[in-house]
Amino acid sequence: MSERPSTRIATHDETSITVRGHDLVNDLIGRRSFSEMIYFHTTQRWPSPGQVKVLDACLVTLMEHGLTPSAIIARLVADSVPEEAQVAMAAGLLSVGSVFVGTMEGAANILAEGVASGEAGYCLRVVQEHRAQRKHLPGFGHPLHRPDDPRSPRLFEVARDAGVSGRHIALLHDLSKTVDEVYGRHLTINATGAIAALLLDIDLPIPALRPMAVVSRSAGLVAHLLEEKETRSGRFIWRTVDEAIPYDSRLR
Amino acid sequence: MSERPSTRIATHDETSITVRGHDLVNDLIGRRSFSEMIYFHTTQRWPSPGQVKVLDACLVTLMEHGLTPSAIIARLVADSVPEEAQVAMAAGLLSVGSVFVGTMEGAANILAEGVASGEAGYCLRVVQEHRAQRKHLPGFGHPLHRPDDPRSPRLFEVARDAGVSGRHIALLHDLSKTVDEVYGRHLTINATGAIAALLLDIDLPIPALRPMAVVSRSAGLVAHLLEEKETRSGRFIWRTVDEAIPYDSRLR
Amino acid sequence: MSERPSTRIATHDETSITVRGHDLVNDLIGRRSFSEMIYFHTTQRWPSPGQVKVLDACLVTLMEHGLTPSAIIARLVADSVPEEAQVAMAAGLLSVGSVFVGTMEGAANILAEGVASGEAGYCLRVVQEHRAQRKHLPGFGHPLHRPDDPRSPRLFEVARDAGVSGRHIALLHDLSKTVDEVYGRHLTINATGAIAALLLDIDLPIPALRPMAVVSRSAGLVAHLLEEKETRSGRFIWRTVDEAIPYDSRLR
Amino acid sequence: MSERPSTRIATHDETSITVRGHDLVNDLIGRRSFSEMIYFHTTQRWPSPGQVKVLDACLVTLMEHGLTPSAIIARLVADSVPEEAQVAMAAGLLSVGSVFVGTMEGAANILAEGVASGEAGYCLRVVQEHRAQRKHLPGFGHPLHRPDDPRSPRLFEVARDAGVSGRHIALLHDLSKTVDEVYGRHLTINATGAIAALLLDIDLPIPALRPMAVVSRSAGLVAHLLEEKETRSGRFIWRTVDEAIPYDSRLR
Repeated sequence: MSERPSTRIATHDETSITVRGHDLVNDLIGRRSFSEMIYFHTTQRWPSPGQVKVLDACLVTLMEHGLTPSAIIARLVADSVPEEAQVAMAAGLLSVGSVFVGTMEGAANILAEGVASGEAGYCLRVVQEHRAQRKHLPGFGHPLHRPDDPRSPRLFEVARDAGVSGRHIALLHDLSKTVDEVYGRHLTINATGAIAALLLDIDLPIPALRPMAVVSRSAGLVAHLLEEKETRSGRFIWRTVDEAIPYDSRLR
Repeated sequence: MSERPSTRIATHDETSITVRGHDLVNDLIGRRSFSEMIYFHTTQRWPSPGQVKVLDACLVTLMEHGLTPSAIIARLVADSVPEEAQVAMAAGLLSVGSVFVGTMEGAANILAEGVASGEAGYCLRVVQEHRAQRKHLPGFGHPLHRPDDPRSPRLFEVARDAGVSGRHIALLHDLSKTVDEVYGRHLTINATGAIAALLLDIDLPIPALRPMAVVSRSAGLVAHLLEEKETRSGRFIWRTVDEAIPYDSRLR
Repeated sequence: MSERPSTRIATHDETSITVRGHDLVNDLIGRRSFSEMIYFHTTQRWPSPGQVKVLDACLVTLMEHGLTPSAIIARLVADSVPEEAQVAMAAGLLSVGSVFVGTMEGAANILAEGVASGEAGYCLRVVQEHRAQRKHLPGFGHPLHRPDDPRSPRLFEVARDAGVSGRHIALLHDLSKTVDEVYGRHLTINATGAIAALLLDIDLPIPALRPMAVVSRSAGLVAHLLEEKETRSGRFIWRTVDEAIPYDSRLR
Repeated sequence: MSERPSTRIATHDETSITVRGHDLVNDLIGRRSFSEMIYFHTTQRWPSPGQVKVLDACLVTLMEHGLTPSAIIARLVADSVPEEAQVAMAAGLLSVGSVFVGTMEGAANILAEGVASGEAGYCLRVVQEHRAQRKHLPGFGHPLHRPDDPRSPRLFEVARDAGVSGRHIALLHDLSKTVDEVYGRHLTINATGAIAALLLDIDLPIPALRPMAVVSRSAGLVAHLLEEKETRSGRFIWRTVDEAIPYDSRLR
């Protein structure tokens, strides 16, 4: 049947497991790091050492940011379903969505299009269009970190030192200069913008970007689940929220 | 208020982010690999190179096993909710539960208790009890891999080469000999059993074990989502299952 | 603090629970049906008997359609996490998303705009625009039910008999005539299109439409979970899918 | 193949949909209420009017209890993934788990065993065993409602008026008297205990009890999603929790 799909991901028999053409036991376990495997499994190419370095930097950056919605949710679910840790983790990951992490994809789309087109004046056009439409320019600005998101320059430094800083990072810097000129004030390149550029410069496809944030954040949530077992914050969160939002008896 | 919990995980201000006492920008990004950070964030200790090697081996082993329930679910959800990749990933991760991965915890509990108690005759007692109660002994046997799960000896080899093979792995080998004697036939040490022993020998706490499987599997699901975009297997899976399970009109 | 939200949903004290201004114990339990409460809780108005009739018809229609992705997912998760039924149900509900149920919202938006604007020639403009852009017109066509989705005429009949058939249903009929003329062939009004019109004619807000499908489908999944306990279809589904999608060893 | 499962739930062809042997269009839509369908789909029997009355009362009772974890989670996810309402609902439903709703199953198991066995002295034995083991007796006690959960007497009244109060409710009353005598103080029958008895007395199977809570709560969450669109409480909840749980810099 012509429409029958196949898979190039994995197969197994009685004595072996094959992942993307490689023997799991002899070629992968003990020979490849988790980060190398993430890169390979996602792109079907083995990464250079510099590419691994950059992927590691991005995964480490995205892993933890304290009591974010994903951590709050994971703690509440862990309190309700203590025996199934994956449920608390999955519930938290559901919030790694379009509003927050989605800006990484927005930034990536802008960068990828600019690099692909090579259009002269691309940055100016994009910034002016966003400004004219009063649309937030993804990858720029941060509600807390001022004047600059401290993660972004460090991420650029890592990419440069690893020898993989390429055209997407360069374009993001051009875009940043244009932003400051057009807006007449400094807007920081935020971490999601920087990470978008780095991951594109190590040749990850755009649809892999949000999943990288999910993988990284899943690792961050492990610590929240372990801490929840000690502090039992779930009940406290529930009570705190319930008390902070009063009942308003006026019907609408 | 005495019952108010605190967190030791992370904090931030305008110019910095702190994760477990370390400055994210200056101490962690570009200086620590993702695997090192997973270990540190989970245990609050930096791993030795050998411990990282073993953690990597376990994460690589658990990452991918083809069209498992988690991958099938992720593909179906990706077909229904294509714009929110984290939803497909989280849905798939919900199935990383007590039945399959739970055996890792069961094996870990047996190994940890045996190492902690130092009880002479522990292995014989445990195996005989499981046999008398016709209970499956977690960590042993595999429905497909015969006579041996090929991952387990390789995982033991990695731990030995990394210099971190310790008392839990040793006990698992003792248990294995006892199993073969008591049952009168060879039962393989399966990968979840081996991984339980390895992760305990690198000092991960038992409640961190299933979360490690979730982190690893989340990375495996990325490849399924990318492949789903090309092959559109979701519709095929739906149709195949619908056709394979006939309607039976007899009311019950 | 001006930005502090309040809630008009519920409150409680030692001796009572209040839901939207009504005493749960004395005014609601035993006095209102589940469907009446769903309508009231969603709209903050008590429904007329005709409105309840139409809501019931829509909820009954959406409840069950056999081995859909939501049911397949729920069965796979129930097999992996048998002790937490809500996890299987929630996993299945995640697939009630933009691709399938989203067409209900698309249809509702078209109907609501047409009724609100009262624009002459609205139907012709909308149909021609969709045709020119080769965009699927939400609410029309069905991959299986030919020549007509049998649910739609019955739903219209229920609304008429209940005395609540209004302007959205009327507009959908106008749209249907226009569709057949412009396309030169008959395209059925499908069930999601009909339900969109009915729910708007009983004054549900558009953001409540997809949630109604989720509530209804959650009830359908209960039967799948109970059947799963008897038939253990989860393992069969896994094996069937694994065997149906072959491994292709060519690397890409 | 002998192990091939079948389904008795639904089938369809070009012109009809069949649900458990009934024609959806001609027999169910417009003829059966949502509650009747829930009962029928779950038990494969049509309910008596009294059974519907009791099911409605239980579903209305479980629907809403204000800013519970499920509502808090749904609001946080709705803020992060605003376009996919089912994701917020499913995330909230994941918390309807063993800790809170699980007590309904615990109570149901005790009641079902007592009714099935007809053991003389059953109540006394059960209460004394729980007391001796310092185990919480499911179905009794409430952290907030004192001296009595107001929902329970009303639920019993509804069952009695509906003519379906049977042996499980009677046993729960016996158990309650025994509890007060053995503990030497009054412990209320809580709503989950009462609902367990009512649902068993209308012949729902125990594995259907938690799913009923999930269906009911899914309807409650609709109101929270609609309110979230107006009040944007998600950000406030995040900020409130983040500020309420301070960072403790001591490493452990």
